Amino acid sequence: MNDLMIPLSMESKEPIYKQIYSYIKDEIKKGRLPCGSKLPSTRVLARNMQLSRSTIEIAYDQLVAEGYLEAEPYRGYYVAQIENLYMMNSPIKKAEHHPQIAETLCLYDFSPRGIDLEQFPYRLWQKITKNILNDAKKEIFGSGMQKGDYELREAIRDYLHRARGVNCTAEQLIIGAGNEYLLLLLHQILGKNGVQVAMENPTYKQAYHVLQSLGYQIYPVLMDAYGILVSQLQKTQAEIAYVTPSHQYPLGVVMPIKRRMELLNWAMEREGRYIIEDDYDSEFRYKGKPIPSLQGVDQAGRVIYIGTFSRSIAPAIRVSYMVLPTALMERYEKEYGFYSCTVSRIEQAVLTCFLKEGYFERHLNRMRANYKAKHDLILSEMQTFPGFCVSGENAGIHLLLTSKQGILEQKLVEQALAGGVRVYGLSAYYIGEAKRREDTVVLGYANLSEQEILQGLEILRKVWKVDSFSRTNKSCDRKEGKIV
Amino acid sequence: MNDLMIPLSMESKEPIYKQIYSYIKDEIKKGRLPCGSKLPSTRVLARNMQLSRSTIEIAYDQLVAEGYLEAEPYRGYYVAQIENLYMMNSPIKKAEHHPQIAETLCLYDFSPRGIDLEQFPYRLWQKITKNILNDAKKEIFGSGMQKGDYELREAIRDYLHRARGVNCTAEQLIIGAGNEYLLLLLHQILGKNGVQVAMENPTYKQAYHVLQSLGYQIYPVLMDAYGILVSQLQKTQAEIAYVTPSHQYPLGVVMPIKRRMELLNWAMEREGRYIIEDDYDSEFRYKGKPIPSLQGVDQAGRVIYIGTFSRSIAPAIRVSYMVLPTALMERYEKEYGFYSCTVSRIEQAVLTCFLKEGYFERHLNRMRANYKAKHDLILSEMQTFPGFCVSGENAGIHLLLTSKQGILEQKLVEQALAGGVRVYGLSAYYIGEAKRREDTVVLGYANLSEQEILQGLEILRKVWKVDSFSRTNKSCDRKEGKIV
Repeated sequence: MNDLMIPLSMESKEPIYKQIYSYIKDEIKKGRLPCGSKLPSTRVLARNMQLSRSTIEIAYDQLVAEGYLEAEPYRGYYVAQIENLYMMNSPIKKAEHHPQIAETLCLYDFSPRGIDLEQFPYRLWQKITKNILNDAKKEIFGSGMQKGDYELREAIRDYLHRARGVNCTAEQLIIGAGNEYLLLLLHQILGKNGVQVAMENPTYKQAYHVLQSLGYQIYPVLMDAYGILVSQLQKTQAEIAYVTPSHQYPLGVVMPIKRRMELLNWAMEREGRYIIEDDYDSEFRYKGKPIPSLQGVDQAGRVIYIGTFSRSIAPAIRVSYMVLPTALMERYEKEYGFYSCTVSRIEQAVLTCFLKEGYFERHLNRMRANYKAKHDLILSEMQTFPGFCVSGENAGIHLLLTSKQGILEQKLVEQALAGGVRVYGLSAYYIGEAKRREDTVVLGYANLSEQEILQGLEILRKVWKVDSFSRTNKSCDRKEGKIV
Repeated sequence: MNDLMIPLSMESKEPIYKQIYSYIKDEIKKGRLPCGSKLPSTRVLARNMQLSRSTIEIAYDQLVAEGYLEAEPYRGYYVAQIENLYMMNSPIKKAEHHPQIAETLCLYDFSPRGIDLEQFPYRLWQKITKNILNDAKKEIFGSGMQKGDYELREAIRDYLHRARGVNCTAEQLIIGAGNEYLLLLLHQILGKNGVQVAMENPTYKQAYHVLQSLGYQIYPVLMDAYGILVSQLQKTQAEIAYVTPSHQYPLGVVMPIKRRMELLNWAMEREGRYIIEDDYDSEFRYKGKPIPSLQGVDQAGRVIYIGTFSRSIAPAIRVSYMVLPTALMERYEKEYGFYSCTVSRIEQAVLTCFLKEGYFERHLNRMRANYKAKHDLILSEMQTFPGFCVSGENAGIHLLLTSKQGILEQKLVEQALAGGVRVYGLSAYYIGEAKRREDTVVLGYANLSEQEILQGLEILRKVWKVDSFSRTNKSCDRKEGKIV
């Protein structure tokens, strides 16, 4: 897409950036820039058009702000899913004027990072916020406690204890504006415990970027059917292991208790070793009895537990929490306790009420039922995808499809996009030089309705020519990449 | 206060931490633990009582949460100003039962960090929030742009341009949850520009703690009547200078344009040098024509501008902003642009409306009038404090009193506390080994009413025996510590 030609009028009263913005917006709306297609980088486009880079950036940023483009770090700008935008602008004439659009627009985005925002209790949130602004006034507008409001920490501790078997006091909890901020803080607290981190491979790229930017040396460690290979971990110099045992991201492996014990043993073998347990979507489980968090099993104070409300409530609520082992909490108190809490006190108060009054549990129950229905639907539909194996489906809000014929993900992704469906290649989640599994795509289903899931899968069935595969019992090749 | 004896009942059904909590709370309420007095550290108290440290911490944290204690990093726990709490609990019997309390309670806290929360437009904030939760719904609950919502950045850019002469595009702005977070982010962006920072001495301790915890080597640089001594700065190895030119914290010096140019020249002398301009309370000025921000004068892209809404709106609103020079912004975009914005999108939307609809300007005008009245009142009262020189009074919401007789701040602070007034010794703001000025106290006046200011000053007049000083024209000794 590096050959994008944008006609400009130097006589126009419209500033240049606005002309660029309008042109790209039109192209997207008309379906000439299809969903998922990559735009030229600001540098390239600036050079081609002989404009300053900031002019292009303003145009791109505006398009991102309006949801036409998505900016992906290190990768560039992509055309976003724009069905709704399109519909809003021309609700009736769509089919008439642009009969080809259904083929080129991204209608169904199986994003593994999406959540279902239709179900968010807007009225309730509004009501609680209103009450808090009515009642609390002065005290809530002052500065609060550094680790976060005590009542909120108590409410989170109670929830974590009940739901995740996390064993901690409210004093061990720190509240912060997102996991990334907590990792920044943790980086300082861990400072003396070295600079070598092991991560599951594939892994959660956002955490990888943060750890990398902090200067950690990162050891990617392969997975097998039970999670991170502790035998491989042993061979690294890592002092810290970042893991997602409840539902590995992205593979979806639920780490069984035996592997958990091996991992804890690794941590206990040497002084100063720690495990960062990112429990990012443990709220949603569909099969097997709940396994308590690693933190709850740990007797030696080696687990740092991190969780978030971004998935269970909404990404806009930038509230995450971190449970520190006592030794690290003492170090924090002594040396880093001066950092002010990064979460607005108003939202802390709203969230406290949401948790303490039982609204959160009710919301979770509703979301569990909602996601379970989608999960069951997608699994039952998979019966009609004989050429694919499903994995990672026992928990969370995404699953993986692996082609039994070894069809490459790039082909699967492109065919899907051509049909207006976005799925995600697994290989992008790998780090380092390890051999990547390239026959697997990731499908999140949280932000699609059941109807949309059915329609999206129907398109995939067509574009992937699923019916041409015989209904063999051939299983997927599990050797390379070690997917379950 | 290390001899605090807390009677415990092992038979009581009340947990131990609760007994400790109740005992200390009672002691404070009864005035036996006066405002400003220091509590034993959790370690010491735990040892003395043969309890675990976490038991003490729970009790202390609860007391902090309820406003009875204040935790000061590196220093310990202090009894807070509790007039209101006390009054609420026993509105009538106060004078009867505890005739001595008026002497020991801290009735008037001249905190330099307070702001006037009486004036916060609670109803308006509530109304805007309500409208936003009504209208925005889904889109506002998703993840937003990494640097912060574009509309908010535009609104801040417009304000900064108009009010502070800041010269930037919305693309150069990053919004974050507080200055400390922005310094963490900046630390990464500056990474390659070295690890040596110069700070004004005395300085804003919170920033000092952050920079120190990030591992910077810090060079304290003395001040004269015009601000940081650039001649001294030249002699350091510093690559970065952290300054508060609009109203030096805490000395209150407004840096004149000549010194600003010297400072900018220092930055331009060598590749990779930067100035961090913390414009923390530039909204409030009382004398002299407004001087634009350093950033607005800088032609070479050497100034990083940081500001906050914590003082102009409320500390609970954890919104700060940072303007990066283009070169640093490019580095950010390329390497660190993946960090999600740490401010809740709901609050971003509320703030955007507050700024764009003119409410912020109106609020600032009201606060300016409010603070100006208090400022003028305190200055006119100072006519009756012949033994003291006033400084730092031309801007901001605090000023300094220096004893012409060279009375030590410790004595001034203690005498004030005995009378129920809290003022702050200047020496605590110094860093490093430099000789500290010890005859000066800092008085903030924002969070006191005019009535309270008058009453507080009346007490100071008595306890400091101000009337015993002759109304000499002797000026303060300005040699040591270089205060204006």
